[in-house]
Amino acid sequence: MEGVDYLAHERKTAQFDVEAMKVVWAGSKHELELSDRMARIVASDPVFRKDNRTMLDRKELFKNTLKKAAHAWKRIHELRLTEEEAGKMRFFIDEPAYVDLHWGMFVPAIKGQGTEEQQKKWLPLAYKMQIIGCYAQTELGHGSNVQGLETTATFDPKTDEFIIHSPTLTSSKWWPGGLGKASTHAVVYARLITDGKDYGIHGFIVQLRSLDDHSPLPGITVGDIGNKFGSGAYNSMDNGVLRFDHVRIPRDQLLMRLSQVTREGKYVQSDVPRQLLYGTMVYVRQTIVADASKALSRATCIATRYSAVRRQFGAQDGGPESPVLDYKTQQNRLFPLIASAYAFRFVGEWLKSLYTDVTQRLQANDFSTLAEAHACTAGLKSLTTSLTADGIEECRKLCGGHGYLSSSGLPELFAVYIPACTYEGDNVVLLLQVARFLVKTVAQLTTGKKPVGTTAYMGNIEHLMQCRCAVKTADDWLNPYAIQEAFEARAVRMAVNCAQNISKAPSQEEGFFNLSADLVEAAVAHCQLIVVTKFIEKLQQNNVGDGVKEQLQVLCNIYALNLLHKHLGDFLVTGTITPKQGALVSEQLRSLYSKLRPNAVALVDAFNYTDHYLGSVLGRYDGNVYPALYEQAWKDPLNESDVPEGYAEYLRPVLKQQVRLARL
Amino acid sequence: MEGVDYLAHERKTAQFDVEAMKVVWAGSKHELELSDRMARIVASDPVFRKDNRTMLDRKELFKNTLKKAAHAWKRIHELRLTEEEAGKMRFFIDEPAYVDLHWGMFVPAIKGQGTEEQQKKWLPLAYKMQIIGCYAQTELGHGSNVQGLETTATFDPKTDEFIIHSPTLTSSKWWPGGLGKASTHAVVYARLITDGKDYGIHGFIVQLRSLDDHSPLPGITVGDIGNKFGSGAYNSMDNGVLRFDHVRIPRDQLLMRLSQVTREGKYVQSDVPRQLLYGTMVYVRQTIVADASKALSRATCIATRYSAVRRQFGAQDGGPESPVLDYKTQQNRLFPLIASAYAFRFVGEWLKSLYTDVTQRLQANDFSTLAEAHACTAGLKSLTTSLTADGIEECRKLCGGHGYLSSSGLPELFAVYIPACTYEGDNVVLLLQVARFLVKTVAQLTTGKKPVGTTAYMGNIEHLMQCRCAVKTADDWLNPYAIQEAFEARAVRMAVNCAQNISKAPSQEEGFFNLSADLVEAAVAHCQLIVVTKFIEKLQQNNVGDGVKEQLQVLCNIYALNLLHKHLGDFLVTGTITPKQGALVSEQLRSLYSKLRPNAVALVDAFNYTDHYLGSVLGRYDGNVYPALYEQAWKDPLNESDVPEGYAEYLRPVLKQQVRLARL
Repeated sequence: MEGVDYLAHERKTAQFDVEAMKVVWAGSKHELELSDRMARIVASDPVFRKDNRTMLDRKELFKNTLKKAAHAWKRIHELRLTEEEAGKMRFFIDEPAYVDLHWGMFVPAIKGQGTEEQQKKWLPLAYKMQIIGCYAQTELGHGSNVQGLETTATFDPKTDEFIIHSPTLTSSKWWPGGLGKASTHAVVYARLITDGKDYGIHGFIVQLRSLDDHSPLPGITVGDIGNKFGSGAYNSMDNGVLRFDHVRIPRDQLLMRLSQVTREGKYVQSDVPRQLLYGTMVYVRQTIVADASKALSRATCIATRYSAVRRQFGAQDGGPESPVLDYKTQQNRLFPLIASAYAFRFVGEWLKSLYTDVTQRLQANDFSTLAEAHACTAGLKSLTTSLTADGIEECRKLCGGHGYLSSSGLPELFAVYIPACTYEGDNVVLLLQVARFLVKTVAQLTTGKKPVGTTAYMGNIEHLMQCRCAVKTADDWLNPYAIQEAFEARAVRMAVNCAQNISKAPSQEEGFFNLSADLVEAAVAHCQLIVVTKFIEKLQQNNVGDGVKEQLQVLCNIYALNLLHKHLGDFLVTGTITPKQGALVSEQLRSLYSKLRPNAVALVDAFNYTDHYLGSVLGRYDGNVYPALYEQAWKDPLNESDVPEGYAEYLRPVLKQQVRLARL
Repeated sequence: MEGVDYLAHERKTAQFDVEAMKVVWAGSKHELELSDRMARIVASDPVFRKDNRTMLDRKELFKNTLKKAAHAWKRIHELRLTEEEAGKMRFFIDEPAYVDLHWGMFVPAIKGQGTEEQQKKWLPLAYKMQIIGCYAQTELGHGSNVQGLETTATFDPKTDEFIIHSPTLTSSKWWPGGLGKASTHAVVYARLITDGKDYGIHGFIVQLRSLDDHSPLPGITVGDIGNKFGSGAYNSMDNGVLRFDHVRIPRDQLLMRLSQVTREGKYVQSDVPRQLLYGTMVYVRQTIVADASKALSRATCIATRYSAVRRQFGAQDGGPESPVLDYKTQQNRLFPLIASAYAFRFVGEWLKSLYTDVTQRLQANDFSTLAEAHACTAGLKSLTTSLTADGIEECRKLCGGHGYLSSSGLPELFAVYIPACTYEGDNVVLLLQVARFLVKTVAQLTTGKKPVGTTAYMGNIEHLMQCRCAVKTADDWLNPYAIQEAFEARAVRMAVNCAQNISKAPSQEEGFFNLSADLVEAAVAHCQLIVVTKFIEKLQQNNVGDGVKEQLQVLCNIYALNLLHKHLGDFLVTGTITPKQGALVSEQLRSLYSKLRPNAVALVDAFNYTDHYLGSVLGRYDGNVYPALYEQAWKDPLNESDVPEGYAEYLRPVLKQQVRLARL
């Protein structure tokens, strides 16, 4: 029945002010109002419908995405949206599209790496979308290792041009979003060669397509790299392949903020500090952490609401079955994911402030915190995206069979999300970078160099190497100090252990190479500590609203203690806690899950997601799932006729024994 | 270049006889020859091509599947294939299709639950495919809990008919494969009601569609439930929805082997033991375990070969980069999955013999091992499918960005595989059943009842509760006795711990309910022990072939020790091993990975998969990956034109500033 709230009883049991929690989740009243307004504009516009995405073939899907992008551009102007509002609108349109790369990579690359003159020339064109740009770095044979790229940009002093060329098949640009079909321009990364010398990788602005008729320019081979994971999903994006056959561009299309080539072909470095590039990396990874909390919260919202709707077993007397949300195995898998969504939200918020801090320091030529900030964002990018990818799939499984239907929204959410584990730094490669930084930090402790920021706790090494956890009862595990100390001790002991084992190897590099599996685990321990710490710090802020703080406390404890249980081996093997204390963790977790249960639906309501954004029949706000599932089914193209296409050719002959030529 | 083996150098480093290992993997020379022959027949037939699956829209895909099924039926007769050969052929066609349910569920249901007379009537029709059947159990609102099904079959003594009816929306049949478009008949599960009394769930043969023109019969609403996870994947299957509006069927279409309704409407149970149904469950789950090893081996084959091809970092002097297979973090993630594929292969082989044993006992009215066999297969189904689903996704990640392309084959393999975690018993529900059996077994130890089969080790409880692991060096962990004892002690201690905690609860049921998260962990420990034990037993068999046994030993040790490391918390918290011994596990694992490295490619070659079956550009036998990726890209429909459809309507107006109505 329309208008009935089938989850009203769940909402009534909430022990906190949901509206106040919405503000906490959004970050501020302004953010909440802004998101809410933009989400509703998108949801109410039929051009932005999403429920047919998985039924469109590749060409229809892509065309539909072009349509949405053009319509959004029109609406942005009609409504005179600010840049902030336009960004939110694109976010709620929720469809991977070439515009993401134009605004998210092409424009920032010119801003960050172009001279003032270059910015003046190119940015107005990009802002007005008179050109559409993408970011062409990765190659068919080269991903994480940027220094391995093969594309060449050879300076020709005779004509004052660079010759961009793809010398091998593996040097083909491969993957850049927006490259395949939409972009007219690209920032292309290539080896700068002048006067016979290779100066390594630099960025160049290259026009790919005619602005008259969009056809590829001479010497340019460009296309789409083909179908990707899932139906719908990233197939709305024209990830592209690009090859250059001696394409000439003017010298001044080298992005020249950091280095230039003179008219004579001399390579000159500017005095702009290279560290500025790290600032961009910190920025991009910070947004990835923020996106992780959005994706995970969306998945948990779907799984939580449907778990309250779906009933199974439990009726001894023929009465209704129990909602699966009552089952401890369901809580045990789902509640830590809700807690993680909140944890990632807050650590993301903190990372935003870290980025501001780093930017201010860079402007003042203070690079002292840069390495730490870089390691911290790299680690958190890895930690949050890995957990979110796995968490979305876990939420799908928590929805039982129906989670496998496209109409549940979860298959597409998973398919769209998982590239985050690979792009902007492969998650394992990033953890090794963190580990390298940790081992270095440990080594420097003896030199008296004070560790900063998120590694400051390592300054307390003497205490942390030998402290004993004081927990005696399950309730002692509610003490944030006990939790934080346990995570600090575990992290520092694992790092020190790695450092010691490396020092036994014939060389530092060999030790690092052989122990990389252990190093990854030490890095994870460090990153989990950061998230736990930032969650605990968040609890110390004044969060207004009835019961809000109490709920956050429960979530924080679930987040930390679930990790403690999951990584119990780490804590025990380092002697951080005892087996008995480990058993008390399980006991406390059970009690925390019971506390969360009556608030579960309200806690995911606090994300304030529209049904349009959720895009899930199972996650509907009103819980009226089954009629919606049933209706959605009939929209499938296969149901256009009762008797399927192919019956006459391939089914009837079988049934009528016209296929059989011999007996079995 | 065609014909060049880019992995030849990897194959040369193998230290064992790959052909002999192929026999071990296949199970026998006969099996190897059969699989090899059928795989080649399928691979060489253009009708069975798979590389276009993800590019077809739903209707094209389904029609193509009907075509393949009809063609297979034709070939099966032309080649006069045996039933065994035909089954293998369908396996290598490797496309979910209505025939899977016809042969795998419809025919066995009639065989298992029909009387001799019913079999005589229906089986010949089914064998000749003059009717096509499916298995309609699950409903929109009811999955795991079969007793909750709502469809009714009410006996009408006036007409000697059952009236099949869907009383509610949630009672709609939902999910059955083959139901939506292909099946003419179904075995429908419904509540048998006669004389006003509900006798619970029974199976009925119901005709759904006209045999003349395939249109749905009166009172029947039938269709497809819509798009599912992934592109291609299970969308070739017409999982269906079915509603009955008082559909009448003759009384003798109740499957009557176990119970009958007389002409007068009296419900009568036959003297056939109900336990026979468990035999079927053991059979089905045994095949699921076998399928897990196939899916996981396929994913590891792709990831291993591509990890040997793909190079990244490591070149200090400008030389070629290192293959990623050399990296310890890659080995640490991939090698345990190769080991798991082998472990699941062998435990699956053993399960097959268990099924034979159970069948023989059932025929002799010996039910003494049935509960244990049932728990064992339930647990192994859960353990192997969960690990395989996660393992396929891990293999995808191990292929870096390119694993995200449909042409890598991994997205579709994942999408096709994951339902195995849900169907035939949700994996968590199954583990709880195992746990219930374990707790019961522990309780019976004091009564003197001897545990049988895979729980026999529990008879040794006194020793296992207090034994101390004797491992002193990393090499001591190569001792199978030390490994097995550690797994036994951990499993029994976790089970006993659960049993003790349950006994403290106000009631057994309450204790069971509250501790279900712990119970699941205890069940996992028990199931892992079974797999480890069967692998160790396999090593005691005579495996001919140079170096074969040594390789299996390495794989077995990797399988066991990786689990030990992953679940270190269990082993430490139960006091099974010490922290020091835990650290030695990591040390030994590093050494085992180095031993496996030169054999990695040969170990996945031993699966003997054709490139057609693998269906992956990255997993090509010859390793010539990049040209193939490049060629495949151009086949995408988006590349049919240089300028995309939609340019004129949606891109040109943006670029030409015809969209903007106002300035930003």
